[in-house]
Amino acid sequence: MTRAAYYLGDRTFAVRDADPAPPGPGEVRIDVAYTGICGTDLHILHGAMDHRVRAPAVIGHEMSGRIAALGAGVDGHAVGDPVTVMPLDWCGECPACRAGHTHICHRLNFVGIDSTGAMQRSWTVPSRLLVALPAGLPLRHAALIEPTAVAVHDVRRSRLARGERAVVIGAGPVGLLIGKVAQAAGGEVTVLEIDPHRRSVAQRLGLAAVDPAAVDVAEHIRDWTGGAGADVVFEVSGSAAGVRVATELAAVRGRLVVVAIHPAPREVDLHRVFWRELELIGVRVYRRDDYEEAARLVLERLVPADELISRVVALEDVMQAFHALEAGGDVKVLLDCGGDA
Amino acid sequence: MTRAAYYLGDRTFAVRDADPAPPGPGEVRIDVAYTGICGTDLHILHGAMDHRVRAPAVIGHEMSGRIAALGAGVDGHAVGDPVTVMPLDWCGECPACRAGHTHICHRLNFVGIDSTGAMQRSWTVPSRLLVALPAGLPLRHAALIEPTAVAVHDVRRSRLARGERAVVIGAGPVGLLIGKVAQAAGGEVTVLEIDPHRRSVAQRLGLAAVDPAAVDVAEHIRDWTGGAGADVVFEVSGSAAGVRVATELAAVRGRLVVVAIHPAPREVDLHRVFWRELELIGVRVYRRDDYEEAARLVLERLVPADELISRVVALEDVMQAFHALEAGGDVKVLLDCGGDA
Repeated sequence: MTRAAYYLGDRTFAVRDADPAPPGPGEVRIDVAYTGICGTDLHILHGAMDHRVRAPAVIGHEMSGRIAALGAGVDGHAVGDPVTVMPLDWCGECPACRAGHTHICHRLNFVGIDSTGAMQRSWTVPSRLLVALPAGLPLRHAALIEPTAVAVHDVRRSRLARGERAVVIGAGPVGLLIGKVAQAAGGEVTVLEIDPHRRSVAQRLGLAAVDPAAVDVAEHIRDWTGGAGADVVFEVSGSAAGVRVATELAAVRGRLVVVAIHPAPREVDLHRVFWRELELIGVRVYRRDDYEEAARLVLERLVPADELISRVVALEDVMQAFHALEAGGDVKVLLDCGGDA
Repeated sequence: MTRAAYYLGDRTFAVRDADPAPPGPGEVRIDVAYTGICGTDLHILHGAMDHRVRAPAVIGHEMSGRIAALGAGVDGHAVGDPVTVMPLDWCGECPACRAGHTHICHRLNFVGIDSTGAMQRSWTVPSRLLVALPAGLPLRHAALIEPTAVAVHDVRRSRLARGERAVVIGAGPVGLLIGKVAQAAGGEVTVLEIDPHRRSVAQRLGLAAVDPAAVDVAEHIRDWTGGAGADVVFEVSGSAAGVRVATELAAVRGRLVVVAIHPAPREVDLHRVFWRELELIGVRVYRRDDYEEAARLVLERLVPADELISRVVALEDVMQAFHALEAGGDVKVLLDCGGDA
């Protein structure tokens, strides 16, 4: 017997006994150590993704653990190996896969949303999803690799070069990670955030943080950049105002990375896009090289996991973990699933 | 004495005598052969650019001619040389110029809009704006180099690769030129155009043309691309519908080039931008390498000037030329300024 947190619909999770699934051919069973809670998981709690998540469902896709059992035909892994999972399972046959864009497969199975995830003590997954952890990386920290890979992908797509200046609009967990990854890439970063607590977190992490309600942001960024504007702007707020200010702040040939998910169409200043030859760049999840770079950044403390993990809660108390996130004072909340004993 | 067409405001041009300006140091005087009329010139006629064009003004920036006189210190050119002009005069000192993006200079002087242009028999310009014409290129054809350079720049920015499929939304002169330049780059092209006359012109030029009001465009492009969507979409219609359909038609990692000028912000489906990792790419004018490539394409008939030039009108009849353009049956109308004698 093992334990798993089930989303039941109606804003409820319940932790119940579960039978560990024995790994089939090509699969491994993982003793899950930690599972992070993502904004998407919060959306699931709120019922916003019931079209994709059929209750009762075990969700969760930011995790770390150790291999507990190998199915038939699994090579290159051993019981006890520390691992994380890249939760993308693609078809390999659609036009996107055939063009090499497997992470944007037309029939992508996002593991932990579209299929069973990591908010449980024992998780069985195809071995092709495994990413081996580098030696010396604590499992607690490794639970941050998935969201860090998002930030690595976003910074990679921005083509941020050493010495360039980047603005990050919105200092939630993803915005903070983008800020740190951009710094690690040699960029100078200013974060815009209206919430004073989030600004203080950004500053504690070594990121310049400005209240866009208190200063003339366009003037501030012009001054900061010698009149040029920002080389890169990451829109992580998801707001109409964020999209508006993004085009305003960008330098000639600036790149605007649309990180936040905007469910409805947004007004975009296409005249400014023309006038300054801006680029708007869509980003979605990550690729394996992003995962590997994320593991390196967490290992080398360039992404400071201890300062980003604000709370670790036992799997049994999953509702308490979600409520803490809803209250807004946290950065990253992990569930302790028991596999780091 | 020479002759020049003056924009007088109030939807009026008048052709008057003018004194040829003797070329100062670093300048040349050109005997203008042909000057094309651009959509921007039509906007000027309609008063939409009176904030930039102070009447009485000689406008015009698509031209060809021969050098008639050299000012002091002009090297590398000789009287009689066939030339065109790249009508961009930049400051060299602003952040965009210092970053090498001189064509998007913060204080750009667009010659023929912000300063005196080519709708005259005799035009004096700084020699740094000259582009020498290749041998064998008729001056009539050479008047198409400037709009072709726009298309070359747009296709270059799209990173269209040989064998890729491109959709061009809108078959005005710029849309047609983009279609031909994209074909010359090895792309396969489908043009969307609601106007039957423009569709027939596109087809005469060898471009597949579809009426987006008559077919399900998304399905048509899906079928054409084996379910993938278009690698590149050029939005040349300037319409809200064009922007909407552009995101719909693009493949995973597709590039949407915003060619038309949208004076007001437009709704953009940023969810689709995220979901398919699309890029929106702003484009503005051209650079010298675009001009040189445009001259080659016109010379080699890959851009078929004779089929694009629908009318040549004497400078004296400038109003007739504008009225023909307003009536909508033309592609490219040239003014014969007399220098091709």
